[in-house]
Order: sequence, then C-alpha cells, then structure tokens
Amino acid sequence: MADEPTGLWLIGARGSVATTAVSGLLALRAGLVPATGCVTERPELAGLPLPGWSDLVVGGHDLSHTPLEKRAEHLAQGGVLPHHLLGAVRAGLRAVDAEIRDGYHPATDDGPQADAARRLARDITDFRDRHGLARVVVVNVSSTEPPVPHVPEHDDLALLERALADPVRRVLPPSSLAAYAALNAGCPFVDFTPSTGIALPALDALARQEGLPYAGRDGKTGETLVRTVLAPMFTSRALRVRSWAGTNLLGGGDGATLEDPAHADSKLRSKARGLESLLGEPVPAPLHIDNVPDLGETKTAWDHVSFEGFLGARMTLQFTWTGLDSALAAPLVLDLARLVAAAHHAGQVGALGALGFFFKDPLGSDEHRFAEQTRELHRWASELGR
Amino acid sequence: MADEPTGLWLIGARGSVATTAVSGLLALRAGLVPATGCVTERPELAGLPLPGWSDLVVGGHDLSHTPLEKRAEHLAQGGVLPHHLLGAVRAGLRAVDAEIRDGYHPATDDGPQADAARRLARDITDFRDRHGLARVVVVNVSSTEPPVPHVPEHDDLALLERALADPVRRVLPPSSLAAYAALNAGCPFVDFTPSTGIALPALDALARQEGLPYAGRDGKTGETLVRTVLAPMFTSRALRVRSWAGTNLLGGGDGATLEDPAHADSKLRSKARGLESLLGEPVPAPLHIDNVPDLGETKTAWDHVSFEGFLGARMTLQFTWTGLDSALAAPLVLDLARLVAAAHHAGQVGALGALGFFFKDPLGSDEHRFAEQTRELHRWASELGR
Amino acid sequence: MADEPTGLWLIGARGSVATTAVSGLLALRAGLVPATGCVTERPELAGLPLPGWSDLVVGGHDLSHTPLEKRAEHLAQGGVLPHHLLGAVRAGLRAVDAEIRDGYHPATDDGPQADAARRLARDITDFRDRHGLARVVVVNVSSTEPPVPHVPEHDDLALLERALADPVRRVLPPSSLAAYAALNAGCPFVDFTPSTGIALPALDALARQEGLPYAGRDGKTGETLVRTVLAPMFTSRALRVRSWAGTNLLGGGDGATLEDPAHADSKLRSKARGLESLLGEPVPAPLHIDNVPDLGETKTAWDHVSFEGFLGARMTLQFTWTGLDSALAAPLVLDLARLVAAAHHAGQVGALGALGFFFKDPLGSDEHRFAEQTRELHRWASELGR
Amino acid sequence: MADEPTGLWLIGARGSVATTAVSGLLALRAGLVPATGCVTERPELAGLPLPGWSDLVVGGHDLSHTPLEKRAEHLAQGGVLPHHLLGAVRAGLRAVDAEIRDGYHPATDDGPQADAARRLARDITDFRDRHGLARVVVVNVSSTEPPVPHVPEHDDLALLERALADPVRRVLPPSSLAAYAALNAGCPFVDFTPSTGIALPALDALARQEGLPYAGRDGKTGETLVRTVLAPMFTSRALRVRSWAGTNLLGGGDGATLEDPAHADSKLRSKARGLESLLGEPVPAPLHIDNVPDLGETKTAWDHVSFEGFLGARMTLQFTWTGLDSALAAPLVLDLARLVAAAHHAGQVGALGALGFFFKDPLGSDEHRFAEQTRELHRWASELGR
Repeated sequence: MADEPTGLWLIGARGSVATTAVSGLLALRAGLVPATGCVTERPELAGLPLPGWSDLVVGGHDLSHTPLEKRAEHLAQGGVLPHHLLGAVRAGLRAVDAEIRDGYHPATDDGPQADAARRLARDITDFRDRHGLARVVVVNVSSTEPPVPHVPEHDDLALLERALADPVRRVLPPSSLAAYAALNAGCPFVDFTPSTGIALPALDALARQEGLPYAGRDGKTGETLVRTVLAPMFTSRALRVRSWAGTNLLGGGDGATLEDPAHADSKLRSKARGLESLLGEPVPAPLHIDNVPDLGETKTAWDHVSFEGFLGARMTLQFTWTGLDSALAAPLVLDLARLVAAAHHAGQVGALGALGFFFKDPLGSDEHRFAEQTRELHRWASELGR
Repeated sequence: MADEPTGLWLIGARGSVATTAVSGLLALRAGLVPATGCVTERPELAGLPLPGWSDLVVGGHDLSHTPLEKRAEHLAQGGVLPHHLLGAVRAGLRAVDAEIRDGYHPATDDGPQADAARRLARDITDFRDRHGLARVVVVNVSSTEPPVPHVPEHDDLALLERALADPVRRVLPPSSLAAYAALNAGCPFVDFTPSTGIALPALDALARQEGLPYAGRDGKTGETLVRTVLAPMFTSRALRVRSWAGTNLLGGGDGATLEDPAHADSKLRSKARGLESLLGEPVPAPLHIDNVPDLGETKTAWDHVSFEGFLGARMTLQFTWTGLDSALAAPLVLDLARLVAAAHHAGQVGALGALGFFFKDPLGSDEHRFAEQTRELHRWASELGR
Repeated sequence: MADEPTGLWLIGARGSVATTAVSGLLALRAGLVPATGCVTERPELAGLPLPGWSDLVVGGHDLSHTPLEKRAEHLAQGGVLPHHLLGAVRAGLRAVDAEIRDGYHPATDDGPQADAARRLARDITDFRDRHGLARVVVVNVSSTEPPVPHVPEHDDLALLERALADPVRRVLPPSSLAAYAALNAGCPFVDFTPSTGIALPALDALARQEGLPYAGRDGKTGETLVRTVLAPMFTSRALRVRSWAGTNLLGGGDGATLEDPAHADSKLRSKARGLESLLGEPVPAPLHIDNVPDLGETKTAWDHVSFEGFLGARMTLQFTWTGLDSALAAPLVLDLARLVAAAHHAGQVGALGALGFFFKDPLGSDEHRFAEQTRELHRWASELGR
Repeated sequence: MADEPTGLWLIGARGSVATTAVSGLLALRAGLVPATGCVTERPELAGLPLPGWSDLVVGGHDLSHTPLEKRAEHLAQGGVLPHHLLGAVRAGLRAVDAEIRDGYHPATDDGPQADAARRLARDITDFRDRHGLARVVVVNVSSTEPPVPHVPEHDDLALLERALADPVRRVLPPSSLAAYAALNAGCPFVDFTPSTGIALPALDALARQEGLPYAGRDGKTGETLVRTVLAPMFTSRALRVRSWAGTNLLGGGDGATLEDPAHADSKLRSKARGLESLLGEPVPAPLHIDNVPDLGETKTAWDHVSFEGFLGARMTLQFTWTGLDSALAAPLVLDLARLVAAAHHAGQVGALGALGFFFKDPLGSDEHRFAEQTRELHRWASELGR
C-alpha cells in the first residue's frame, strides 16, 4: 500500500493544528524541511508499508471560512511556521482549501442528526471518489467540547440510530456525529482531541460492524507527555510521589476555549485519569489551565512534584515545558493518518490500543507509561511490517 | 540464600551515604520505617531470594575516625535522618563502628601496594569469619577520586601484580586497590562512585579468574536519572535536542571534593558519556558542578534542554531537581548489596550489566535509557528468581 | 520608652505564626539566635526608641487549646524551629500559654456581639494590669476569613454600635470584632491577615476617636513581596508586562483554609489589587492557591511574567519561591509590635501608611512598590527617632 | 537643544545591538512602533530637552563589512526584528551603512596607536561636519575584550600620550583607543560593554581636560538587572543570603566571544563586583557563561538564591530569565545617546554617576541597587530639565 493514494480528512481543517499539518506536509513533499517530529520516519518504524508524503491528499470539514493561507500567515507570526516557507506552500494551501466543506453545527444544522451525518459522510465519499483514494482517514482536530452527559443511546447502536432519526433530539455532540459519519462512510477515525468523539460503546459497535479501526484520544503533546515519562521513574525507584501540581498557560484559540471551565473539564479529566494510573495511587494533583492570550501559540506548563525517599526524606522535581502546541501536534496527525491507513489496509478493527503512544487518554489500552507505549508501538509496527 | 547471613563491607564507611545506609538498615530491621526508595522491595523483584534486612551485617574501611553516631547527628540536622530515629539506632551504629577498620591512604600506607592490599583483604576475611558470613559484598561509597592516567599494567593482571609488589610504585588509585583487595578476599565488588575502582581490564580478569561478579559505576541518583528518562522521550518522538545544559549546586563533603576540577572531571566525564549515547549524536552540553557549602546535604540541579520540532519550531524543557543525595543513594547501596549477593550465590561472574539501572556509567552494558534498564533489571531478577 | 514593658496580644495565639514568633522571641531574649528577618534590627532603624526583646510580654486569644509546646514540636518537625531550641523555650512557651484566653466564635458566643467584645477587651486590659504594661499592641494572626458583604453599619460608628447591641445580629466578622475590642481596650491594632479586621470606616473612626494608631493588612511575606520588587523593574525600564500568572502551593493549616474558595477569595483579591497598581494597567493575571498538604509549612510559588520589549520582542521571567511562611511572618509580627508601640508612644493616630512595607494591601497608603515602601519606612523611623 | 541634529557614533556599528538600535530608531522615526523599552519616553523623564528620534543621525566604526541589511534579516529570523518591519527600514539601513568606517584592529593598524586614534577621530569629526551636527555621542557596543593588565601609562595622561606615539607599543586595548579618539574629537563617550574602554584614570583626566561627560559601563540588561532588584529585597527584610549561583546560556556572537574564558572574565568580574556590594558581604556566588549556539539571540539565565530567615530557616528563590539581549540593549543605547547629549549640552563633565541605572558596573557611582539608581536618574533628569 506504500504508494496508494490516501485521504486525510480533517475535522477542524482550518484550525492551527490542521494548518500546521497541511503546511508541513506540503513542505515535506517538496523536500524543503526534514521530518523532525514525525515518528513514522524513525528507524524503528522503517519496515512499515506506509503511504508516502506525496500519496496523502487532504480535505476536511470546518465551520470557519478563514482561508488556510490566512491562518498560515498568522502561524508564521506566532513562530510556528518559518516565514520563508510561506511562499512555497501557498498554492498547495489553496488547493486543500478547495477540499474543505462546512462542518456540522447543532445550531444551524436543523432537522434530524441522521441527515447531517449523511451530508458529512457524503462530503467524505465524494472526496474519496473525486481523488480515487484507496481509503480516507478521518482525524478530529477541532476545538475541545465540554463533556457530554451519558445517555442509554450512547451504549446501544440501535437505540442511537433511532435517536439520530428524531427531528429534534441532539443525542450526539458534534465530535461523535463526525465519528459516526466517518464510520458510515467506511473510514477509520482518529480522535486527536479530548472530546467524546468515538469513545462511546455504540460507536465502537459500529466500527466493529463496519470492520474499521480507530484510535484516540487527546494528543499527548506536552505536559502529559513529560508526566508519563517521569512518573514511572519514581515508581521504578520506589520513591513515593506525595503530590503533583500543575499549571498550564496557553493563548491561541485553545486558551480561549479552555478558559470556559466546561470545556477545560474534558481536558483536566483526561489528564487526571492518567496520573493515578501511573502512580498506582491517587495523590493530591491540583491542575489548572489558564488562558493567557499574549502567549499566542506558545504553551507553558509548570509542574511541581513533591516526593518522599528513604527515611521519609522530602524532595522535589519541578519542570517548565515551553512548547508550540501546533508544532508538536501536527506531525503526530500526519503519523496517525499513515499508521491508521496501514492498520486499515491490514484489516485491523476496533480501538488500536498500540497507538496509545500518541494519546493522553488511550482508547483500547490501560498503559500510560510512555516507554511501554513506545515498545508497544514498535512491536505493533514490526508485526504489521512483516 | 534468603536467610544466609551476608556481609556488607563499605569503603568509606563513615561517609554520609554509608551512615545513611546503615541508619536506614537499622530502622528497617526494627520496623520503624517503610522501605521507601528500596528497589528490592518493589513487587517486580519479589521473587528474588535476597538476604533480609536482618541478615545483613555491616563493616567497612574508612580513613576518618569520626564516629557514626556523630555523623548521624549531623545528617539529622541536614534533614536526611529524622530526629526521632536517632535514639533508636544509636546502639546499632556503635556496633557497626566497631567493625570499621582504617582504610588505605597512599601517603601513610608505605611499602608495596600489595602489602596494603593484603591488609585490606584480611580485614574483610576476618570480618567474614568473625560473623560466620556466607559472603561479603564490598561497596565503594568513598569520595570521588580524580581520573587516573592509564598505564599498561591496568590492562594485564600479571603486569599489575608485579607492579603492586614494587615497594615504591603506586600503580593503583585507592578505589582500585580496594577492588583488588575485595576480589582477593573472594568478595563481589560494587563501585558506587565515578572513581576508577574495578573498571580496569586487569581487575575484570581477576574477577573472572576468581569467579566473582561485580557492578558499577557511579550511582545514578539525581540529574542523570532524570536525563536518562527524558532523553529517550525526545528520541522516541523524533524531536531533535539541540543543546542540553546543566548546573549542579551541592554542599556537603561532596561539594568540597568536586570543587577541585580534577575530581569533578571524573563525574563530568561519567555524565557526558551517557548523554551522547542517549541522543544518538553529540550536542552542546555544558555542565557545571559548583560547591555551595550552605546547601549542606541538598543537591540542586537545573537542566535546560533546547529542542527542535516540526518545521524547525524551537522549544525548551527546563527542570530543577532538589534532592538529598545521601537519602537517594543509601537505599540503592542496600539494594546492590542484596542483588549482588544473589548474583554471587547464583554463580554469576564478571560485570553485571543488568544492574545498569543503578549507575550513571554502567559497566557491562551500553544501555543508558532508564526504562530499558528497568526492564533489563526485572528480566534479570525474574530469571534469577526461578 | 525603650525599656517600658510592652504587651503583644496575639489573635490566633496558638497558630503557626504566633508559635514561631513567641519561640523566636524567647530565643532572642536568651541570646540563642541572631535576629535574622527582624527589620527593626536593621541599621536604618537603629535610632528608634523601641521596646527590647525582654520588654515584650505575650498573651492572646485563640479558639484552639492545643498547647504552644505541642505546636512548637510540630513546627520543629516541619523545619521551622530548630530542634535544639525546643528545650530552651519550653518553659517560656508554658508561661505564654497561661496568658491565652478563649477567642470569639460566632457559633458559641451567643448574645449581643457587644458583650463578646467587652469580654475580649477585658481579657486584654486584665493582661495589661496584671503585668503593669505601658501599652499592649494587638496583632491579628488568626486564620483568613472569607470576605464579608458590606453593610451601612460598617461605615458609621454609631450605627455599628447599635447593631452590636442587637442580641441576634452578627454585624462584624470575628477579625473586626477583635479590632473593635482592642480599640475599646485602648490598644493599637495590627491586621496581619487579609481578613476584614480594622479595614472598616467605622473602626477607623473609633481608632481616631480613641487616639490610637493601627496598621495592616495581610503580611507581605512571599510571592507578593517578590512581585512588588520585580514589577517596578519592568515599569522603570519601559518594558510592557503582558501577563503575570501565579500558582501557590501550600500545606499546613493555611492550605486547608484557603482551599475553601470563599477564604481564598480574600487573599486573591488582596494580591490582585497590588499588581494592577504596580503596573499601571490591568494585565491578565491568573492566580491560584492550592492546598497540597504534604508540603506542610513550606509554601512554593511559581510566577510566569511575559513581557514585551523593543520592537515587540517577547520575553519571559519566571521565578519559584520556596519559603517557610511562619518563619517569614514571625519576625515581622515582632517588628510590628515594636514599631506600632513606638507610634503609639509618639501619639500617632489612625492608619500607619508608612508601615505599608509589611503588607500586601497597605492601609493608609497607595504605594505598593517595595523599594519606595522601604524608603518611607526609613523616613518615618528617622523622624520618629529624633 | 530638543531639535538640534545629534550624532550617534557606534563602535561596533554592524553588530546585533547596533543593528537593532538603528532599525528601531528608523521604525520609531516612521511611527511604526511604540517606544517600548525606551526609558527616555517614561513620564518621569518627560521634562528633559532631548534630541528627538528624527534629530539623531547614525554612523560608526566596525571591522566587519557585512551590510546592516543582511544583519537585520538575520535578526528577523532570530525573533529580534519583526519581519514586517524589514521592508520599511531597508533604505534607512543602507544610508547608515554608508556612514560606517573601518574600525581599529591592533593587527592591521600598524604604526603608532596615536596615528590610528587620529584616523578614528577624523572619521567622527568628518561625520559631524558632513551632517552639521551639534554634537556626536560615541557609544561602544562592540564585542567584549579580555581584561587588560594595568600599566602606569593608564594612570597618567602624559605618560599615556608618550606611549601612544611609540611606533610599536599597544598600550591601549581597542575599546580604550576608541574612547581616546572620541574625546580627542570632542565627543562624549559611552561604554556599553564590560571592556576597559574609558575606565582608566588617564582617560578620565582627558575627559575632564576636554570638558566632556562620559558614562558606563556594561549595559545592565538581564540577569544582573534582576539581581540588583532582588538583592535589596533580602537586605531590607534582614534576610541573609547564603549563596547566589547563576548560569547564563547564550548563543549569537556574544556566546562565541564569551566562550573564551579570557573574554568571559571581564563580564564575570563586572557581575561579581555588584553582588557583594549589594549584599554587604561576600557570599559564595558561582557564575557561569556558556556558549549554546542554537539559542541564537536568546539569552537564558538561571539564578538560585539560598537565604536564611528567622531562627535559621532555610529558603530559596530561583528565577529563569529568557531575554533577547539585543532587544533589551538597543533602546538603552538610544536612551544613552539622548541623555548624554543632554548632559553635554548642559556642560556636565566626567563620569555621569546618575546614569548607573543603565550599567552593571557603574562609573562614577557605588550604587548598585536598581530602585535607588532609578531615583537618582529621575532626580538628575528633573534637575537637568529645569
């Protein structure tokens, strides 16, 4: 499948992560930049039959109509895209822009959600047909949604489909409707955000019924990445973590979204789930996300770990992470598109636990330790590569 | 062998690490403290037949005559030992004190080094006989020595023994003479410092000839521990580390020793060797060790990692580690005594690469990644435990 | 007045700050420790006629009955008091304990608040008479209260006294009732907490009517101290602060109190008021206080300042403050007792703005810049010293 | 004098600081940017009769022939200059480029140093005449020189001039020869680097003889700025600083220059002088400057302050400063040109101690406390403004 044309359909195709991923893909294809940050280019994954940079065709859904070019200029000012690349990728960005369709919005998409899902699925199948693609991987990189109250329809596909046909009910949040549409279009799905997305038993059932793989959720790009590396260190050395406090400062659109406590809640829950699992016991772990608009695309996290050693000795480890979130996320989005395409090609079905390496809240796996996730990924890749 | 009486002979038996290890052993034996920081108490090592806390008998060499009780009081002021334990361990400290003999000093031990080695070996065998010990593990926790110029005798046991018989030459530094004596006494040896110690081909030959295992070197207790955890994160994620700067502030005796650039050099070389190996390429990595007496037993390290991501994005990770070095080292000394005793019992010979987990500069292994070292240790333990 | 016996009456006399202040006073009086942290011992304040350490007699109110000795032992474990001092101050702590009376609690003190105030005042005047004190300075070091809704009685002394006589109403929070009682007992008052305390127009009127000085509020001991030093640096250099985020981690009783958002609110408001005043414009300044019990008496604050320089260059300053709050506050409590005694002796009346140096939210002054506050204090002292 | 044409002659006119200063001046003149970072635009200095941005004409000496435009492009990539300004300042940069003459280099300028000095002075007077300037302020912003051994000629102008006439001797380092030439050209001189420059008694004598003011040295732009703000905080609060360790990571040309220990020495001495003066006693203060090329124009400093409070309590303050050195220095260079022009106009002579605000190692003043320096500057300005 290494040279099969493969689609990458981005939910939130005009956001920062998507724009960075597309700009980077164009630059990689033109040989203008090294593949820094792309895990699929590591020697350990060399044996995998993956679509090449030139085999990937990008389209997507978005509610915004701001052109990708405009977004790319903004990202250049924020230090995410080098100025000198802008010229080289403009034409490519315009071409991708032409493949972006209006996303779903509960307020404007009236009528049954099933109708909206059909429209979304058709956008994707049209895209696949138009470009003669072997497959399309749908990746959600849109803004974080607030957590959704659980209802019985989320657990049962038949019940769910009945509710979707209801002209008034909104039984699925937009991220899950996007997953539903993707699966109905015969496409594997990747949840790069902490939103509900595909993480509902009814959608898992649908994926299995359609024979489709999926992966998620919530890209592990910064503070949590470091945490899943450091926490096992304490455990392996029998050092007892007594508290683990964290503060995240971020600007950009993400900062504004997460300023709303309802939206932040998804993110914070996703982060907390992992820490307790890593340490083997709950510890006080206050965690904040603050919107600091002037930081723009930069995200700064400070963590303070208090731990106890021999004879009760009290010690601390602090770290400050200063990252460009979109630059960290974008190559992983490309990686996931390639890896999930390979999984689909290989006939894998359901949650791809071996891709937990990429996620804060891995679906299909309980493993949060990054080194173990790395080993699982490499093992999975070497099996798939045979 | 779980209940065989086992000796722990400490070179530098009146130093901070030794005093903390002995005080802690006494407190563990009395059930006064949990075994925090003791890796041998982790569930992954549960199957190993190790000597119990009550099976360990401690003696050692030192040049200092300051009683262990005095040292323990000093460590209590420095926050390493809890005040309330002092009373409970006094008698035990006095008993260990009675088992400490004068160490080797090139200035005062005149005559051939071979004579000194015989004296040192006899101290250990006397100790073994006196207490009816199944075996004695010798662990070097004395002050860091400056690096030693390499001479041909270091590579050839026969040449070395001839030189040792010379009444004037000082062919081995004290740490290596201690290792030579230990091996001649039929004892496994552990190098917990960056000094030359057993890391000479001639001594490896002697260990093999005598059928003895050994492990080393330079206990990985702070900044390097964190580095060997973080560096693989960057590599696994295809992020390119551009520079890794570090500063260590330390007081105590260690600070004063390492203030001397000749001594610090051993430590710095030991730290640098690992980083390049971890990152797969050399990067600018300025590193300093500063003596800051007022910090006492506390060691503070600040590391600044500059790395590059997708499209050349520049990002940083900083960490500040504030540790009590003796509290971090002491339980590992006890762990090593138990594990090397088990290896000896099992008939293992030569450098125990599987114990690289404990060391900055692992003998018998090129693996510096902490997660991989953890896996190796667990694998080794489970094989030994069968 | 340098040798007049002077009372120090502590509201919250068995809390950490009070216990540290009393233990320290006893150690200073015995010549066992230097006066580190005591501003009144600086050369710039040398000319002031202040009561000596031996002239100070301590009593106070508290709701707790845990003896001071017990508290002192606890503080020794937390690293605030040196173990070796405990023995030397035990007798003195017992003597002070005997001078502590039950504080006011709205739930148990039934009847009109005026009655409770009379009881509190009588405790103080009895103390003054019993020890033949020239004056008693009352200092509030009790737990932080939640902010209190403003009512007209807070602005008018006559209205207030009518409300206090009401058998059911609770028109004043405990901190303000303590201030009211102190003024009625003819005593100057110091508010070391962010609670309402004396900061009500009606109580200011009472202080003026009684010819009494007072000072407050909210001791500036850590993060805010550093902020009031750094913020003027940016301003003086025409650098534009764009955001100033802060996180405070604290354990101890204070951590638990401030975990309750209602209580934290007082503290956060007090901190925010200053920053805007210092920078000359409001900036995004998210600020958190987290209860992290294992930190005990240690308080760690991390601040992240993002600022803009020439041509829009973006830069940052981060700091981490790790302090022992009681050790920072206690000497200032002693300083304030001495300084306010001197002000009373000199006939000063009303809010002592020149003592803004000590406070996050200075009463009687709009100056938050620490260097300017230092100058004001020195000027005031030199005038008073003439 | 507010509208008198005034020259700014930069020694090192094609370096990063100079290029940033000139680009910024052009942008300010065009009204494209606010005067962030320019102290002379603060309200406290409003009354001063200063040359306006449009009154300043720039020329200078440099050994490099890389055009300013090229340097500006490089600085834009490093984040110091905004990309969108480049176009607007190109023409202006070319015009300044035409006013730059070859600097002095001991290896290529053979013959007596007096001849070279005459050539340098003539370059400046030609520039003054060509543009009809009321005065020219010469500012040294060239690379840091190593410290120079003291010789008797440095103390005596007559001796010095004799040595300068010697065809072989090199009695003055380049920075001092530049100062000598400037004074001979009748120009005030500013030393923005830690090099020897004008800080020699013989040159002070020459300045006085010629009736010229001067200021220096070593622009206080980062770590030291923060230190001179924080150190007085500890002192004012009677807290005892026990150690103050610092590490500086820098790339750019400065990093490479200071990698050479001989050059770094000037800088380190200049930094150390201040700390002891600020704290009133020497404390252990290890300080490092590391060349980390990948950091480019960014300079990161980490400081660790260990201090002692009441009853010996041990506490720490750490800070991390991440600055763009050229962006911090450039506006101060413009400020100094304006302020020293005003001082010259007002007939002030010798070292301008009131400008210590700008320097790590203030000439003409022993005051290092930043708040006090700010007050002195404002007082000086208000006297001059009358």
